[in-house]
Amino acid sequence: MTDVRTAGPDGRREPLPQTQRAAVLHAPGDVRLEERPVPVPGPREALVRVAAVGVCGSDVHYYEHGRIADFVVTSPLVLGHEASGTVVATGSEVTRVRPGDRVALEPGVPCGHCGQCRTGRYNLCPDVRFFATPPIDGAFAEYVVLDEAFTHPVPDTLSDDAAALIEPLSVAVWANRKARVEPGMSVLVSGAGPIGLLCLQVARARGAARVVATDISEHRLAVAHRLGAETVNVREREPSSVIPDADVLLECSGSAEAIASGIRCVAPAGTVVLVGMGEPTPPLPVDVIQQRELWVTGTFRYAHVYPAAIELAASGSIELDGLVTARFGLAEAEQALLASRRDPAALKAIVRPDGRTMG
Amino acid sequence: MTDVRTAGPDGRREPLPQTQRAAVLHAPGDVRLEERPVPVPGPREALVRVAAVGVCGSDVHYYEHGRIADFVVTSPLVLGHEASGTVVATGSEVTRVRPGDRVALEPGVPCGHCGQCRTGRYNLCPDVRFFATPPIDGAFAEYVVLDEAFTHPVPDTLSDDAAALIEPLSVAVWANRKARVEPGMSVLVSGAGPIGLLCLQVARARGAARVVATDISEHRLAVAHRLGAETVNVREREPSSVIPDADVLLECSGSAEAIASGIRCVAPAGTVVLVGMGEPTPPLPVDVIQQRELWVTGTFRYAHVYPAAIELAASGSIELDGLVTARFGLAEAEQALLASRRDPAALKAIVRPDGRTMG
Amino acid sequence: MTDVRTAGPDGRREPLPQTQRAAVLHAPGDVRLEERPVPVPGPREALVRVAAVGVCGSDVHYYEHGRIADFVVTSPLVLGHEASGTVVATGSEVTRVRPGDRVALEPGVPCGHCGQCRTGRYNLCPDVRFFATPPIDGAFAEYVVLDEAFTHPVPDTLSDDAAALIEPLSVAVWANRKARVEPGMSVLVSGAGPIGLLCLQVARARGAARVVATDISEHRLAVAHRLGAETVNVREREPSSVIPDADVLLECSGSAEAIASGIRCVAPAGTVVLVGMGEPTPPLPVDVIQQRELWVTGTFRYAHVYPAAIELAASGSIELDGLVTARFGLAEAEQALLASRRDPAALKAIVRPDGRTMG
Amino acid sequence: MTDVRTAGPDGRREPLPQTQRAAVLHAPGDVRLEERPVPVPGPREALVRVAAVGVCGSDVHYYEHGRIADFVVTSPLVLGHEASGTVVATGSEVTRVRPGDRVALEPGVPCGHCGQCRTGRYNLCPDVRFFATPPIDGAFAEYVVLDEAFTHPVPDTLSDDAAALIEPLSVAVWANRKARVEPGMSVLVSGAGPIGLLCLQVARARGAARVVATDISEHRLAVAHRLGAETVNVREREPSSVIPDADVLLECSGSAEAIASGIRCVAPAGTVVLVGMGEPTPPLPVDVIQQRELWVTGTFRYAHVYPAAIELAASGSIELDGLVTARFGLAEAEQALLASRRDPAALKAIVRPDGRTMG
Repeated sequence: MTDVRTAGPDGRREPLPQTQRAAVLHAPGDVRLEERPVPVPGPREALVRVAAVGVCGSDVHYYEHGRIADFVVTSPLVLGHEASGTVVATGSEVTRVRPGDRVALEPGVPCGHCGQCRTGRYNLCPDVRFFATPPIDGAFAEYVVLDEAFTHPVPDTLSDDAAALIEPLSVAVWANRKARVEPGMSVLVSGAGPIGLLCLQVARARGAARVVATDISEHRLAVAHRLGAETVNVREREPSSVIPDADVLLECSGSAEAIASGIRCVAPAGTVVLVGMGEPTPPLPVDVIQQRELWVTGTFRYAHVYPAAIELAASGSIELDGLVTARFGLAEAEQALLASRRDPAALKAIVRPDGRTMG
Repeated sequence: MTDVRTAGPDGRREPLPQTQRAAVLHAPGDVRLEERPVPVPGPREALVRVAAVGVCGSDVHYYEHGRIADFVVTSPLVLGHEASGTVVATGSEVTRVRPGDRVALEPGVPCGHCGQCRTGRYNLCPDVRFFATPPIDGAFAEYVVLDEAFTHPVPDTLSDDAAALIEPLSVAVWANRKARVEPGMSVLVSGAGPIGLLCLQVARARGAARVVATDISEHRLAVAHRLGAETVNVREREPSSVIPDADVLLECSGSAEAIASGIRCVAPAGTVVLVGMGEPTPPLPVDVIQQRELWVTGTFRYAHVYPAAIELAASGSIELDGLVTARFGLAEAEQALLASRRDPAALKAIVRPDGRTMG
Repeated sequence: MTDVRTAGPDGRREPLPQTQRAAVLHAPGDVRLEERPVPVPGPREALVRVAAVGVCGSDVHYYEHGRIADFVVTSPLVLGHEASGTVVATGSEVTRVRPGDRVALEPGVPCGHCGQCRTGRYNLCPDVRFFATPPIDGAFAEYVVLDEAFTHPVPDTLSDDAAALIEPLSVAVWANRKARVEPGMSVLVSGAGPIGLLCLQVARARGAARVVATDISEHRLAVAHRLGAETVNVREREPSSVIPDADVLLECSGSAEAIASGIRCVAPAGTVVLVGMGEPTPPLPVDVIQQRELWVTGTFRYAHVYPAAIELAASGSIELDGLVTARFGLAEAEQALLASRRDPAALKAIVRPDGRTMG
Repeated sequence: MTDVRTAGPDGRREPLPQTQRAAVLHAPGDVRLEERPVPVPGPREALVRVAAVGVCGSDVHYYEHGRIADFVVTSPLVLGHEASGTVVATGSEVTRVRPGDRVALEPGVPCGHCGQCRTGRYNLCPDVRFFATPPIDGAFAEYVVLDEAFTHPVPDTLSDDAAALIEPLSVAVWANRKARVEPGMSVLVSGAGPIGLLCLQVARARGAARVVATDISEHRLAVAHRLGAETVNVREREPSSVIPDADVLLECSGSAEAIASGIRCVAPAGTVVLVGMGEPTPPLPVDVIQQRELWVTGTFRYAHVYPAAIELAASGSIELDGLVTARFGLAEAEQALLASRRDPAALKAIVRPDGRTMG
């Protein structure tokens, strides 16, 4: 590796192998552990030894179906985009990080030149290269390279797992920012999976006076309750009977029923943020949107929020480690993808490419 | 009338009758001309001799069906809420208008005390008293009373008809304000009825670089073209083939198809304002809303825009008189309600309670 | 008292005297304890037995100078506008509160009819009647009446003192709302008096990543540090050496030097909120405002924030009782006004009209 | 020139010389016509034959003083940043423009990598390379190269002069956008020089109901009047006597007096945009800013507005050619810089590097 820096500020350097192992999806249900070359960072890139990778619903969806909407796995793909690790080498122009830095990896690198990038909305860049989205490989691997601008240092108080979960936390920070959650507000979070549980925590960290979480799983509602939300099992009650005048709905389930019943809970002039993905064209109560002049938007990933997410997590306002319900080595990546299927109490599975499977 | 001022600034006063005529809806298809007492203005109210009243689709809907959604005509109702006239008497505390003033009537008087009123969103007041919305009588009558704060003086350069049409123009001003239409923007207006034709004119008056109007009526599209829009007959072409990257959609048709196809025309981070009323829960392309992070809202009437609408009309930026396609006396109110049914080229019918049926 | 309800929901009622005591300012340095009639609530008003009243800098200024800018004490005036108490009687149309309710008193009642009121900015109402602002009497008295809409119930977990301090907390909530403080942001609070100490706490409750407080008093800086801020004694260091890239400046000192040096700390596109009052026309670094495109605004009281302030205080995010450094009976109101003068460690003095001078 | 395209879509190409002439500032009052090599465009750059260049006050300031604030002319500098021309060659990766395209040149190319660039505020990029700002050469030359993303095609209906003046028009579009000028609003423009005259036109193009322009020059006020503004000569009257309740102040004079008297004209909750540059730290009426809760900001150049400015100019809403009061050849650049000094009626001088000095 010419023009690559491998020594940290203390002069120490980590031995770098020529090859690495990666868990590669070849077809639905077919993940193979393969030997691959360790990539070489470009001038503005860092090479990161991966410590922890969260399993996201989208990883599971690719594993099971080989596609998400128009994104089709047509050649072998490495999954995993919620990742943390340690910088082990940096390109010649890198200034933000140094070998030895522990980092959270923001998994999408935009083109930097299109209209969306120029106006600051890099998450909407049509040419973004996003981990584990065909044909871009993800982080179920021992090493990855990433543009330094998307490689965010984390303090030592954050565990490797927590640093990996800065990715879903960023989704929640972004949703709350869109909703402009404020002190005194009343927030409904529909869906208490990992994203919902993070959204409700961020709403509380922004000072929301009241946060109500809904789900159909008592287990998830119990976690939501522990994290500070009132809870409603929508199998038993209409959410509008509990929170008929929410200022904000953060919809994290993707369920058409939850969208419709949630919107009916929002007070006039309130805001609805559709975070969860589900049916492409569900029926929406346009009459309610009109009569109450609600503002409805959706989120697509996030932009400019990693630093805030890291600060929130580091401040102790957000519980991340507590969402991890299982850990796996790289060779067990397939087990990790199946975890949520097999355990109804599962929240977040973590893959540990370095083999350390315990927190 | 004690404590009521009837003399204008020049000392002249208009003779006031004891009774007046009004066109009263008793049941679907049953409008009767009746004699009623002339109302007496309260301390903060003005008595207005009605000059012109536009016929709105909601008037036609009440006439045909006796209801709109949960608003049911259970007792005789005077229709008409797009009105202009001349102040003929004022209550003891009135300061904004004087007898002799020509005025546009903002037809909804909110309670002034609820949370919506206190935060400035008086159009969302649950206790608003809105003309021609059961059980509040409207303006198909020779005289009406109105809170002075909702009685807006108009310059002599505006005709009576134009002053009446400040009401639908306010809908268009409100929709454009919600959309924050800016110079340089590209705006899609779906539906070229009266509201759509006003929305496109306001968009141009705000400096929009490109305005595209869609409809299925060649007649309406011809008017839209004359008013400065590019046009698309959606029976012939998908609007996205003409304007695939609108900054704003102002949806004025209420058609589920138009909503869906219109949203697909909007560029990332764009805004959708649902103005037209139609099916309560049409399918919406939530996938597009999410992937492009669109902002979608609806409008319910308007707030604080009458003065701006009057200024726009008075400046000559907006053509109002040209939208009037038929005029009727009060005795012909039923003909006015049927006009749009009978004439495919009809845009806006006007009722003239003072009997002058020509512009 | 006809048409006045004095019984609480449990049927109990408090004996109401005919007269009460009030501390009345007659001239600079001349406060007298006087007997006055207990006021009778109007139809939409509540009569409140005052429990606690915070002493504000403006009270001290009226006491010392007999005026603030154009507001001149020309007739005897009761000071005090940071008040809490218990409802003891309600007018015939009151629905929000009942006798027995403990309440925080929002001390300014706007006219409800002007353009500012109608657009929701009631704090800018030119006809607002604000406690202790000539010629409106304040709350250094045993009983006050107040429009029910400005009488905010508080939970039992809030002490009387804390309920009184909802008023300055509302100033801080309003300033933070104007600044749109967000998780991850870096906030500079210049001036660590009561308002500054509340502003920094609200910034933290909104998730600010970093809050730096400046002052010239080591005592106040020590309190700021205890409440979670980094601190800078501006006699020793330029704040820009510690926080050269603040997202937000909340200026709470009113000092021209603090305004100028604080603005230089704000990063491009940042926000400056001028809360503290001082010189009317200090020099401002317009070059910095332009080159960094800062947004600068000022606050004048607050609007619509009492409920949020109460929620924040009730949630435990904000320390209020800890700011109280001295308590006085009504007969000692003058001592309370002099407290900050006599004790450099004084923060907030409280007057207890019911005679209970201990927390 | 390898890897450079010189043929237009019709196959025609313009002969390209090896050298060109440029007007170079060596010291205050010392401009020399020099021979320089024609630059070679990089992969994403266009080579443009310059047609017209407006003379800006900043050019005059560099000519007279050799510096503006911290920007000091330490080596020979080509002035001129308001430029238009024709593309004559393009780098290998250029896609937006082709040889033969007439273009307006956006004169500042930001780094694209810093935090300001990434969040869409490229005008605040600390590493921007801006024409005629030391040490970056400007456009008083026959040829310039520019990043294609900042090379904006103009329609044939815009003259070369008008295309050059898209630059100051962009300043006005940006100021109006910051102020969110809306239909119905009342706008005060202080200073009726070129920027003020453009600001008032943009305000009208956004639908402002009333625009008042102030100045001390009757000549400039006459132009402002012709362009649709009411006018006030501030030597004769206080602007607040004419417009005491502006929604917006666009301050274009840079005068401390104009800033102070203008702010006093702004209604509560109004917006002040400081566009003109003058004293770095003038006194500002902070008491007014606080009591009225005004929002005050400044502008630094512009971002993302060239396309909107071109559309506005092309639509005929904005008069640009009418602002040109004198034209000069490149050899007369010094005369152009002195024009405003010598002619009190001068507004905008244009340099025509191609020698065509008449419009």
